[in-house]
Amino acid sequence: MGHGGCGPGFSVTCPPGRKEARSTSPCSLLQMGWGDLGVYGEPSRETPNLDRMAAEGMLFPNFYSANPLCSPSRAALLTGRLPIRNGFYTTNGRARNAYTPQAMVGGIPDQELLLPELLKGAGYASKIVGKWHLGHRPRFHPLRHGFDEWFGSPNCHFGPYDGRAQPNIPVYRDWEMVGRYYEEFPINLKTGEANLTQVYLQEALDFIKRQQADKRPFFLYWAVDATHAPVYASRPFLGTSQRGRYGDAVREIDDSVGKILQLLRDLRIAEATFVFFTSDNGAALISAPQQGGSNGPFLCGKQTTFEGGMREPAIAWWPGRVPAGQVSHQQGTLMDLFTTSLSLAGLAPPSDRVIDGLDLLPAMLRGRLTDRPIFYYRGNTLMAVTLGQHKAHFWTWTNSWEEFRQGVDFCPGQNVSGVTTHTQEEHTRLPLIFHLGRDPGERFPLSFASTEYLAALGAIAPAVQQHQKTLVPGQPQLNVCDQAVMNWAPPGCKKLGKCLTPPESTPEKCSWPH
Amino acid sequence: MGHGGCGPGFSVTCPPGRKEARSTSPCSLLQMGWGDLGVYGEPSRETPNLDRMAAEGMLFPNFYSANPLCSPSRAALLTGRLPIRNGFYTTNGRARNAYTPQAMVGGIPDQELLLPELLKGAGYASKIVGKWHLGHRPRFHPLRHGFDEWFGSPNCHFGPYDGRAQPNIPVYRDWEMVGRYYEEFPINLKTGEANLTQVYLQEALDFIKRQQADKRPFFLYWAVDATHAPVYASRPFLGTSQRGRYGDAVREIDDSVGKILQLLRDLRIAEATFVFFTSDNGAALISAPQQGGSNGPFLCGKQTTFEGGMREPAIAWWPGRVPAGQVSHQQGTLMDLFTTSLSLAGLAPPSDRVIDGLDLLPAMLRGRLTDRPIFYYRGNTLMAVTLGQHKAHFWTWTNSWEEFRQGVDFCPGQNVSGVTTHTQEEHTRLPLIFHLGRDPGERFPLSFASTEYLAALGAIAPAVQQHQKTLVPGQPQLNVCDQAVMNWAPPGCKKLGKCLTPPESTPEKCSWPH
Repeated sequence: MGHGGCGPGFSVTCPPGRKEARSTSPCSLLQMGWGDLGVYGEPSRETPNLDRMAAEGMLFPNFYSANPLCSPSRAALLTGRLPIRNGFYTTNGRARNAYTPQAMVGGIPDQELLLPELLKGAGYASKIVGKWHLGHRPRFHPLRHGFDEWFGSPNCHFGPYDGRAQPNIPVYRDWEMVGRYYEEFPINLKTGEANLTQVYLQEALDFIKRQQADKRPFFLYWAVDATHAPVYASRPFLGTSQRGRYGDAVREIDDSVGKILQLLRDLRIAEATFVFFTSDNGAALISAPQQGGSNGPFLCGKQTTFEGGMREPAIAWWPGRVPAGQVSHQQGTLMDLFTTSLSLAGLAPPSDRVIDGLDLLPAMLRGRLTDRPIFYYRGNTLMAVTLGQHKAHFWTWTNSWEEFRQGVDFCPGQNVSGVTTHTQEEHTRLPLIFHLGRDPGERFPLSFASTEYLAALGAIAPAVQQHQKTLVPGQPQLNVCDQAVMNWAPPGCKKLGKCLTPPESTPEKCSWPH
Repeated sequence: MGHGGCGPGFSVTCPPGRKEARSTSPCSLLQMGWGDLGVYGEPSRETPNLDRMAAEGMLFPNFYSANPLCSPSRAALLTGRLPIRNGFYTTNGRARNAYTPQAMVGGIPDQELLLPELLKGAGYASKIVGKWHLGHRPRFHPLRHGFDEWFGSPNCHFGPYDGRAQPNIPVYRDWEMVGRYYEEFPINLKTGEANLTQVYLQEALDFIKRQQADKRPFFLYWAVDATHAPVYASRPFLGTSQRGRYGDAVREIDDSVGKILQLLRDLRIAEATFVFFTSDNGAALISAPQQGGSNGPFLCGKQTTFEGGMREPAIAWWPGRVPAGQVSHQQGTLMDLFTTSLSLAGLAPPSDRVIDGLDLLPAMLRGRLTDRPIFYYRGNTLMAVTLGQHKAHFWTWTNSWEEFRQGVDFCPGQNVSGVTTHTQEEHTRLPLIFHLGRDPGERFPLSFASTEYLAALGAIAPAVQQHQKTLVPGQPQLNVCDQAVMNWAPPGCKKLGKCLTPPESTPEKCSWPH
């Protein structure tokens, strides 16, 4: 859109001096699967608000997370860089998925430039609502990395814990804890009742109203997590879905997105606000069917580098600018939201480092398609690459036989011989190649002898070579765990009388089984 | 809709004397899968016309064929009765899928009343375009069973044959053959080129124009088959899909549906015409990925009684009457199109026999949901029943180990332990029960000890008992095969100089391996 149009990005708007605009992003990063939205074919079709968002906006059926797991994907979104660059990976084992549990010592490095930090340069106010997941020690606090406001938690809402072996996860308002999950912020594991999505919705609505009143451009990162096990919903939604408790949570998120978009319309800033909806990894099929979603026709789920683990629902919405009811086959990634948001704010991405995000504005505003490889990493290992319609697997692995035999199954009901393997299988010389158009479920590898195979490999191999030749891996952040760094005494605990005494420091290698 | 509204049905319209109306039905019965439409989540989203049809009409995500195979489903559609009643099954083996190959002696019994026969009573003109599949001997000719016109073939477009061991399948115009596949009606197996869908489209458009000019109510049964292997498309569509040749065929059918609907608009009879789009069985995954489609998130495909074998894409369209952009969770079947069409024509279904079809007008016009069981038969065996959200499998079987080991796989990439079995497993006392809302992929059987299981069984068991107690199976039509009854010398062959001499009659039991 160049300089003429000036419109808000991912959550972004124009810098002062340009045509006034605002922006938000109910980027519900929440391990919802590609197949969980009606518009993506979920049979119960219980997402009327997201479906309407798609009808008024643009659908990206070929949109990917940056990782099959939450923390690395979120770090990639906010830095515009692959986890292998920004440090959100582990070298404790090969191809291991790592995240930021309570004992995690690492987090987002200071030298990484986060989207809200950069948007400050264009006068944006930024807020994160929900799960941060980029490290919970004080130096990793979101307000030290560009956000002006925060309401939410640093880790997942696992628990309840007894405060002795492990403290309950804190909920923050800005710099300080205002309570803990299962204590001040109850989640009833038996009934699934919790009103957290309603609280997160109010936080979003209030923030938008305040920015609009101040005429300030804004970036809202609405990172709700009701669809992450333990799945929850508030009472009006419990038991209302045909899909069980998981569906109740989806319905509440859908309803909330509808309310956020309606507020933008009511405030008459819809046409100045760019909104993007997506997820951080595929549906967690190990939690299905009670607490896990659907990856539609795709193979496997969260934790894997098959399509079900990383292809995400994605909708762009910007009334009057992004054409309504369109589908873009641009291959996109979470990291593109970084670059696109900067572009919307009239800012260039940092030039002193590699940025993996692509500016999606040409795709959205002018229907332009840009060829680019999609990289599927699992920890320190490049497992697969998609270029055009062809996906090449250099390594295949779901999880170990040992785990699998204990019932940990990332691909329930699915088994593609030689593909969904339980040992790490190397194919770096002769990758398994699939045509995702004809075979989105990755069930029929191309014959090694076919001309199609050779042509696809001929295109993919140089792209991979180029990528690997220039790659400078970041310092791995997810290697060391320590009971002492848990949320024993987060800032603000004294006021609440909720400080716990941390145990002695015992740093050790984190254990990442898969 | 009672007497007030008077509107066309499945392909139907009002009887003379009532508000004039016409109707058609591009009921593309063609083993397209549930997941092949953009509106049902196909990732390439290449069906803009069908998606628009859904946006202007009503989607039925819980719509079923009457059988996991073509002939029985089509017989059920036109009779409103399960194949077990109308004779479209075999007793040569247990739970065998049977259809009408060239050597089939049987076909639709005279005592069955077909939809076009009944619609005559309301002054309708009826045409079938495409595949008949209800028997090819003269007594089974569609014009002897109520249709006024026919352009198409009695069997699948398999071939080419050499005219010695087997003749090529004839193409009929009305009473007489006008040529044969691979001869006068070429299909290039190498390139996939055939212009048959274009011919079928013209036949449909011409018929509609003529009826409109004559102000006659009409029933059009547009039974194209380009997505049935060997899959074909005409040159303008070949190579245009992201999904390969199968996608080319889907795109041409989608384009044709768009042209039919546009003609109805242009002739100003859209609001007097009820159109329904659906399929006769799930996508044939044994033909995937080159020549088979997608069943979305569902288990297995054609030939099986899992959801992938029998859940079908379904769209109802009737501008101004069926509300636009709605989704109905009414469980529907192909047989409902029989009853609904009669209802639209102001006719009652026959009262001297059991009719399995439900009138869908209350669902479409008033949003009413009617509880009813869905029966999944495979040949002579009731394999499964769905009631509400629960599906109970009384028998599980895909195909034999012998076939499976030879590479015949109805569930490629899918394997649900104890469910997708290769021996016929009986569960009549304790059926496997799935909750289709939480688990549309039939991957997680309910625990036998759960209260949910007991409640579901308590509801399903009496429905099954009632069904079986009153069932009077029809004379099985698909038991006997004879080389002599093949299409050696169909009516009209003399004019064309294309009569072949049949071999001696050697009736034998047809072989149905699965």
